[in-house]
Amino acid sequence: MSTPDTTRTSPTADEQQARVEETLIRNVLRSFGDCEDPRLKQLMQSLVTYLHAFIRDVRLTEEEWNIAIEFLTAVGHITDDRRQEFILLSDVLGVSMQTINVNNTAYKNATEATVFGPFFVDDAPEIPNGGDISGGATGQPCWVEGTVTDTDGNPIPGARIEVWEADEDGFYDVQYDDNRVAGRAHLYSDENGNYSFWGLTPTPYPIPHDGPVGKMLEATGRSPMRASHLHFMVTAPEKRTLVTHIFVTGDDLLKYDTVFGVKQSLIKDFTEQPAGTPTPDGRDLGDTTWARTRFNIALAPANI
Amino acid sequence: MSTPDTTRTSPTADEQQARVEETLIRNVLRSFGDCEDPRLKQLMQSLVTYLHAFIRDVRLTEEEWNIAIEFLTAVGHITDDRRQEFILLSDVLGVSMQTINVNNTAYKNATEATVFGPFFVDDAPEIPNGGDISGGATGQPCWVEGTVTDTDGNPIPGARIEVWEADEDGFYDVQYDDNRVAGRAHLYSDENGNYSFWGLTPTPYPIPHDGPVGKMLEATGRSPMRASHLHFMVTAPEKRTLVTHIFVTGDDLLKYDTVFGVKQSLIKDFTEQPAGTPTPDGRDLGDTTWARTRFNIALAPANI
Ligand SMILES: [Fe+2]
Ligand SMILES: [Fe+2]
Repeated sequence: MSTPDTTRTSPTADEQQARVEETLIRNVLRSFGDCEDPRLKQLMQSLVTYLHAFIRDVRLTEEEWNIAIEFLTAVGHITDDRRQEFILLSDVLGVSMQTINVNNTAYKNATEATVFGPFFVDDAPEIPNGGDISGGATGQPCWVEGTVTDTDGNPIPGARIEVWEADEDGFYDVQYDDNRVAGRAHLYSDENGNYSFWGLTPTPYPIPHDGPVGKMLEATGRSPMRASHLHFMVTAPEKRTLVTHIFVTGDDLLKYDTVFGVKQSLIKDFTEQPAGTPTPDGRDLGDTTWARTRFNIALAPANI
Repeated sequence: MSTPDTTRTSPTADEQQARVEETLIRNVLRSFGDCEDPRLKQLMQSLVTYLHAFIRDVRLTEEEWNIAIEFLTAVGHITDDRRQEFILLSDVLGVSMQTINVNNTAYKNATEATVFGPFFVDDAPEIPNGGDISGGATGQPCWVEGTVTDTDGNPIPGARIEVWEADEDGFYDVQYDDNRVAGRAHLYSDENGNYSFWGLTPTPYPIPHDGPVGKMLEATGRSPMRASHLHFMVTAPEKRTLVTHIFVTGDDLLKYDTVFGVKQSLIKDFTEQPAGTPTPDGRDLGDTTWARTRFNIALAPANI
């Protein structure tokens, strides 16, 4: 018979409680122990670790858990072929942008990536350099030009450049009632890596905010607005595909872009030109003002 | 003019990358800075912190992000008034159980809580002590008895005890095609805090696994089975409501219960009685075997 160890006291209620919570986490982690796909196992075990840390950290109440279940249910029910509220939720939590960051690691002077957004369309028309993407979408004409290079400064001819943007009312063509294609096109950089086109000076617009994500933004005092931007997707052989936007110097929304797409390096001067200022390609714009901007694009190598 | 500080080198690509990822997190946290409800603000900021830590930790790929969006969309679309796949998802990740833990902190010898599950019904019939809850549900008869006390051992008379369980095929009455009520009832502890009833020896059953959560369990090598159990909800004035189960000593599934409901203190001996063994209340069970178990319940004070 051993003498009782009087230096050992029974656990306090707090210690008992911590033990219960930690035992559960160990059990959940262990439940994924037989997963044969090592990456899936890692993802599930890491997800469990952070989810449980969250619940323990905030001491989530059962009522809050219920509200979370109801919120996710509403997000699921508004989602259909045309509306993707889960992506919206991911966007407004910065989850989409963080995923983009993780998959587009900084590399020399490579142009930074930002969120893809829901408004890209696969078969936008081709235009020549200097052509017009507006297709009848309304807004201030804007001359956009630049070069596409690799990260050593060598020009990349023939890079495919997809561009798309909203009209001056903040709507993309896919949000119109008819099937018109407007405010989008693709073109190719020329033999010196240069490109240019007529677009529209970007304007701000709200993300769809009539659903549960909009309600969450409102409840937390957040705006649904996106900063004004023009979308780019640039592809070239053996280069990492670049999905990005350019933003407008001086836009009030740069600090509040609700999907966190803004990066300092992507903010460009859009210089307004008085009516009558000669255009770069001699186009006659009559008595309307226009703007111009430059966006030089550097593509990282693929598989870095 | 100052001389250049040669001890300062420009940031490495890794440092640059970390800075981009951390800046994003700061921006997302700041976006909730104006939230007027301090608890909602805390919840959203903590959620963002852990979600982003997860993405950075696993270096989530864009393809994995896409799969996650598709998975959540499928969970949303199978969910309706009768099927709650988000709760199922919460259950199999241990999120439901952890929330229960956090809200039912250890207190002296108070009986431990476990998951509520989706099969409780509000208006189950009342039975007297010693009555039968089976209502025609098939299975081995099982005598269940115990006392309800406070955590100082004082009996609690008149505690309301809700009990519910699956039949021997693993189905609850709400899963039957007709509207029969079976395998559920409520009763009250007597003047000495004692209670007793005839139920069924619990049997294991799978959670609904024909949806996206079932696919996830399969992909990760997990079973959809729950350990055999009998549900209790016990309420009494000025006591914390107890939602719990009892489990069966020796059940192979105790280690793998897919919603992590098992706690050591809730595993009870269900002692099988040979056919012909006299029953506690003189009921004649003919030539069928039966079982008996004891579950003493200690309720914590409310508002601890
Ligand atoms: Fe956009
Ligand atoms: Fe159950």
